Amino acid sequence: MAEVYQASTTAPVNIAVVKYWGKRDPKLNLPTNSSVSVTLSQVDLRTHTTAACSSSFSEDTLLLNSSPQDVSGARTQACFRELRSLRAALESSNPSLPKLSSLPLRIVSENNFPTAAGLASSAAGFAALVRAIANLYELPSSPTDLSCIARQGSGSACRSLFGGYVAWQMGSKVDGSDSVAVELAPASHWPTMRALILVVSAEKKGVSSTSGMQITVGTSELFQRRAEVVVPKHMELMTKAIQERDFETFGKVTMMESNSFHATCLDTFPPIFYLNDVSRAAIRVVEDINRKAGKIVAAYTFDAGPNAVIYFEEQNSGLVAGLFKSALGSLDGWQGRDIEVQEATDVDARAVEVLKGGVSRVILTSVGEGPIRTEESLIAANGESLKK
Amino acid sequence: MAEVYQASTTAPVNIAVVKYWGKRDPKLNLPTNSSVSVTLSQVDLRTHTTAACSSSFSEDTLLLNSSPQDVSGARTQACFRELRSLRAALESSNPSLPKLSSLPLRIVSENNFPTAAGLASSAAGFAALVRAIANLYELPSSPTDLSCIARQGSGSACRSLFGGYVAWQMGSKVDGSDSVAVELAPASHWPTMRALILVVSAEKKGVSSTSGMQITVGTSELFQRRAEVVVPKHMELMTKAIQERDFETFGKVTMMESNSFHATCLDTFPPIFYLNDVSRAAIRVVEDINRKAGKIVAAYTFDAGPNAVIYFEEQNSGLVAGLFKSALGSLDGWQGRDIEVQEATDVDARAVEVLKGGVSRVILTSVGEGPIRTEESLIAANGESLKK
Repeated sequence: MAEVYQASTTAPVNIAVVKYWGKRDPKLNLPTNSSVSVTLSQVDLRTHTTAACSSSFSEDTLLLNSSPQDVSGARTQACFRELRSLRAALESSNPSLPKLSSLPLRIVSENNFPTAAGLASSAAGFAALVRAIANLYELPSSPTDLSCIARQGSGSACRSLFGGYVAWQMGSKVDGSDSVAVELAPASHWPTMRALILVVSAEKKGVSSTSGMQITVGTSELFQRRAEVVVPKHMELMTKAIQERDFETFGKVTMMESNSFHATCLDTFPPIFYLNDVSRAAIRVVEDINRKAGKIVAAYTFDAGPNAVIYFEEQNSGLVAGLFKSALGSLDGWQGRDIEVQEATDVDARAVEVLKGGVSRVILTSVGEGPIRTEESLIAANGESLKK
Repeated sequence: MAEVYQASTTAPVNIAVVKYWGKRDPKLNLPTNSSVSVTLSQVDLRTHTTAACSSSFSEDTLLLNSSPQDVSGARTQACFRELRSLRAALESSNPSLPKLSSLPLRIVSENNFPTAAGLASSAAGFAALVRAIANLYELPSSPTDLSCIARQGSGSACRSLFGGYVAWQMGSKVDGSDSVAVELAPASHWPTMRALILVVSAEKKGVSSTSGMQITVGTSELFQRRAEVVVPKHMELMTKAIQERDFETFGKVTMMESNSFHATCLDTFPPIFYLNDVSRAAIRVVEDINRKAGKIVAAYTFDAGPNAVIYFEEQNSGLVAGLFKSALGSLDGWQGRDIEVQEATDVDARAVEVLKGGVSRVILTSVGEGPIRTEESLIAANGESLKK
């Protein structure tokens, strides 16, 4: 039987606090502006991926949550091509290495979170795919090198190659070689960062981010201002806030960034709406929490959907998560979390009612590490997927 | 008994298609950008005001819909002061005129539309107040002259001194003397313009436009771009579209303007939301109507609240109003209007359901005339209000 080579990794989800929206080069996924994200703990949200190759495989395949995926798309093909090319260079320089670059790939991937939740899983997915193949090929590439490849799979995936606090530098080169992710600070630099995700039941999937962002670039009359003036200012403030663990600035910029991004979506023609009345209620409750605290202790952010991600520091768990728990304590997601319920006084009662009616579950998590190599494999020694 | 002098007028509501949002001088109500509106028919929406003065009155008073109003505010006082000053100048040059400028004023005002509907009634209100006092004082001032006074009462009131299609030129002078309204075209130039207003039951009154717009000016990072670049472009396009009765351009600019204005509200910190899920459903249905028609036959616009105003041309009444009637036909507002119901095929069914649940009444109206002098008085010859 032909030998089966394999390697496995897990990779995290990241949630941007300075948003990526708009490509200057749609083929290479080169963005119109830089962005910053917080990597979330893999205990709660991660993709687990095993990459294998063998001459016994007939073609490249990808199984995600037991469903075969199309690998013929330009984005997946770009990742395969770039990684094979790096492996082929290693093989040329060291003829004793097995010729893995020419073997068909079998990728098996599993998420540990509900796929229907509308959480940006493509970032974790492409980061895990690239990292797993790089492990399989024993590439000496750095996470930043690999981020340039993962970016071509899904823009925001480049940020999931690091833990902690991560910047995606937009770069300026035409070939995209300087459009890469770098670590701003490891998770250990500011380990008290927490995130409460309110999973909102959307009536239906809105415009996909891939098509939506290019309609914004093409039609919004405010977008250019955001990309050229607003985001560079936010990048500077956010980078400094993270360095100094300054939550007030971190929180204010996070909220303004989310609003600015959704403002350019609304300024798109036809307009794109990701926030609904439940999202607005979450914003209102965060505002009331901050008003009660007399400072910014909670910060909302929304991606291309109605789910709220609320950042806060551990020492304010009661003030923030505890208050949401008083309204949403009966939902899945609080189990095993030591969060003391805080009465929702001085908080808009109607907004609380809207949350009760519109949030389907919560996820309480924290800042976490980047991809972690694992010996736990999703592919058997004979090459068969262990997940059916 | 002392003589009671009096004069009456009616004044219309106007709904902007290029929006006023932001003051460069809050005291004089000088805007950060020019704007354009359509004056709506007074058959459906008007303020009726009688202004009287007499030595038998003890002080300036204002009765609106039978409720005494505070007249000590700077805005009302500015209108009284400017109008009295013009009257005083007349009296100086012609000593035979009665000295009305020194007499206390009694103003009685009535709206013919539900005040709870959240329709911008201050525009019609201040236009009627200024026009009625100008009639009482027999001022030779033109509507543009008077617009400069009404603007100090409520910015958008200056546009209600004209019928048809009206521009408020922002002006550049520090004293505001060139920040005035002018007629772009009379109603007769494009008489087929119709407006369907969907009155949406809001959970509560949002941020007032007076305070909201200044928070936008102070905090939105996109606002300046809108005022300096986006609106001037829209003003040019809109003026030409009205001159040429080009509904497609009129409609596209109207929708983009509304979106741009609400985008800067969302970009305000903290964000201001006037659109709710019902407003979004109205947008969706308008998009579907236009898609079905293969061109822009309907255009939505929203002011500082969730109510939708949908402009269309009479020849498309069936396609536009008829389709909304199929969903909302049981509500008040359709009586006496010859609108053929159009089946809501190829229209988002969920959006139609949201409209059914969230719209409380409709108002179907058309472009109309400016203030009309009337002999119908709300004040008796003895100076008593005829409305209790």
